Amino acid sequence: MKIGVLGAGQLGRMLALAGYPLANRFTFLDTTGHPSAGIGEVMIDTDRRHLEEFLERVDLVTYEFEHLPVSLVQAIEEHKPVHPSSEAIRVCQNRAEEKALFDRLGIPTPAYRLVESAEALEAAARELGTPVVAKSVTEGYDGKGQAVLKDPAEAADAWHAINHPRLIVEAFVDFVREVSIIAVRGRDGEVAFYPMAENVHVDGILRYSVAPLPDLDAAIQQTADGYIRALLDELDYVGVLTLELFQTRDGGLMANEMAPRVHNSGHWTMDGAVTSQFENHLRAIQGLPLGDTAARLPTCMVNVIGREGDPAELLAIEDAHLHRYDKSERAGRKLGHVNLVAPTHDALLEKVRACAALLPDAPEPRFSFEE
Amino acid sequence: MKIGVLGAGQLGRMLALAGYPLANRFTFLDTTGHPSAGIGEVMIDTDRRHLEEFLERVDLVTYEFEHLPVSLVQAIEEHKPVHPSSEAIRVCQNRAEEKALFDRLGIPTPAYRLVESAEALEAAARELGTPVVAKSVTEGYDGKGQAVLKDPAEAADAWHAINHPRLIVEAFVDFVREVSIIAVRGRDGEVAFYPMAENVHVDGILRYSVAPLPDLDAAIQQTADGYIRALLDELDYVGVLTLELFQTRDGGLMANEMAPRVHNSGHWTMDGAVTSQFENHLRAIQGLPLGDTAARLPTCMVNVIGREGDPAELLAIEDAHLHRYDKSERAGRKLGHVNLVAPTHDALLEKVRACAALLPDAPEPRFSFEE
Repeated sequence: MKIGVLGAGQLGRMLALAGYPLANRFTFLDTTGHPSAGIGEVMIDTDRRHLEEFLERVDLVTYEFEHLPVSLVQAIEEHKPVHPSSEAIRVCQNRAEEKALFDRLGIPTPAYRLVESAEALEAAARELGTPVVAKSVTEGYDGKGQAVLKDPAEAADAWHAINHPRLIVEAFVDFVREVSIIAVRGRDGEVAFYPMAENVHVDGILRYSVAPLPDLDAAIQQTADGYIRALLDELDYVGVLTLELFQTRDGGLMANEMAPRVHNSGHWTMDGAVTSQFENHLRAIQGLPLGDTAARLPTCMVNVIGREGDPAELLAIEDAHLHRYDKSERAGRKLGHVNLVAPTHDALLEKVRACAALLPDAPEPRFSFEE
Repeated sequence: MKIGVLGAGQLGRMLALAGYPLANRFTFLDTTGHPSAGIGEVMIDTDRRHLEEFLERVDLVTYEFEHLPVSLVQAIEEHKPVHPSSEAIRVCQNRAEEKALFDRLGIPTPAYRLVESAEALEAAARELGTPVVAKSVTEGYDGKGQAVLKDPAEAADAWHAINHPRLIVEAFVDFVREVSIIAVRGRDGEVAFYPMAENVHVDGILRYSVAPLPDLDAAIQQTADGYIRALLDELDYVGVLTLELFQTRDGGLMANEMAPRVHNSGHWTMDGAVTSQFENHLRAIQGLPLGDTAARLPTCMVNVIGREGDPAELLAIEDAHLHRYDKSERAGRKLGHVNLVAPTHDALLEKVRACAALLPDAPEPRFSFEE
């Protein structure tokens, strides 16, 4: 099976690494001019001139990046199967659409307003009660295109800083932790759920993900499973879907956002789960049976951001698995990750601290389940 | 680190899959005209014209195939580091050299004679007592270039069938099972040992490897560790070395042969060990710390030979990990393998039987530790 991937970054690279053993071959279509996958065949196409050639080379199309023109994906769907579909992209790349879908399916979210002016932003901040977070409805990710308003009077500055015609304004949630649920749905509708992960973000960038969680009530996992299943079924979705949630003090879950693809908060599955998110995505889109999503052992994914650590020092940690993306260093750039695996969560936390100490720009690791 | 690999088959492919996460890049030098790696950059060089270009592209050279001209590897060593060294190749590609080394290091082997004529073969068969196995001293692998003599009178036929000027003639060993020990030695002399595997061959081709073994006395593992450590240290070896042994009825071990590379009997480590043989080979040759060689769970590698099974059926087995080499079907050809992982050896054997039933040419799985 020849698989075409829209986007050519580290997610595509890791898809390919999972797909070679399934006898898949990969062609990437990069529309940015800066591909980093470094594997398979990479076609740079900044002017849509190579699309036809790309489509001739592949049997099936998927993507590693949802901020694609929906029209492009719809055009591709007329020639080749695309999983997940353009409809998933359309919904996921627009926060207003996404919230409307959450509302329709009864998935709780923070209170929100849509605004189209600085004045409306100020009014929304007043109504929801500050602090609020304002986000452009499209194209924001990893904390870009966002601002926190501590006072409604900051609306004009925030409006100009974000510089987007339509924003979503969300009330702050008094959450205990940020979590995510990753699930995969096959072409036959079969669904499998990974154990939920706790995610630690700093400045909007994911730094740590731990799974499974030592203190997670099974009922909460089931609630999350139900939410993501509703999304998967509603979208007639095929492949891996990620839903980021806030867990509140009373144990409730509120949806933050979703991503129609393999996700950084699922990288722990490469070394910590029976089947990785990458392999399961590929199994799903090819109509193969889904693999077991169970965790083997407590695992923590530590992102390598901005600057790399010494590989020899990182690999000297027992049961540490280094995943470098072969990219050059740049502030805020995801350069790789380290998966740490341990028999207990206490042993895991020790390793995470040892690993963080070896990474120049790693924040202090802190998790909600620590004593 | 840009790694050059001599040979471009499935072992090179799996090395590359393990090396991308270490930010390695791979260039393969294929001297057969039939590369199958399907990853990285493959240079076909049947006339040694591209050797210089190959060497310009790489920092470090390793190989996936030891039946290379020693002179070629020595020539490469004058320009780039080669691990393991040409000395390891020289010894391993000649059964007479190999036996002499085993003898020198006190590693027991079956009784043997070297012969250079049909008459000498007949005399050796008489002296050792039939049955004996006769093998060309060079270039044989996977059961090629071998013959079993049940009677000294078969010497002339065997001599002509093997058609080689120098043979080694070995007494049969009354073994309980065939096992292998795989170890890895770093550039600093650090050594790590994998748990021994039981290997089932049919017609000289490996079909099943199971590790760890439920009935293996720790003292036997230590004996094997000692043998392979002696070889590693004697050869000042860097990388993965494989030693195939017979385990006799009294628990003793006799060396059969060794391979200076990652080995089919170590493929189980890809899904069953903390660190795969491929990653550990790459760690070793780059001077990185070695990874943990412990097994996570009982694992069986099932080779896919000649004809493939239906991937969907194979992947429906729980905790089955398919590794296809993306090669076309041909009788006796290694097309892939399936790693099966289970919490107990009993559960594992059930999976192995289920898997074998899905492979058109798989022999009945039988292991020494079954009741």
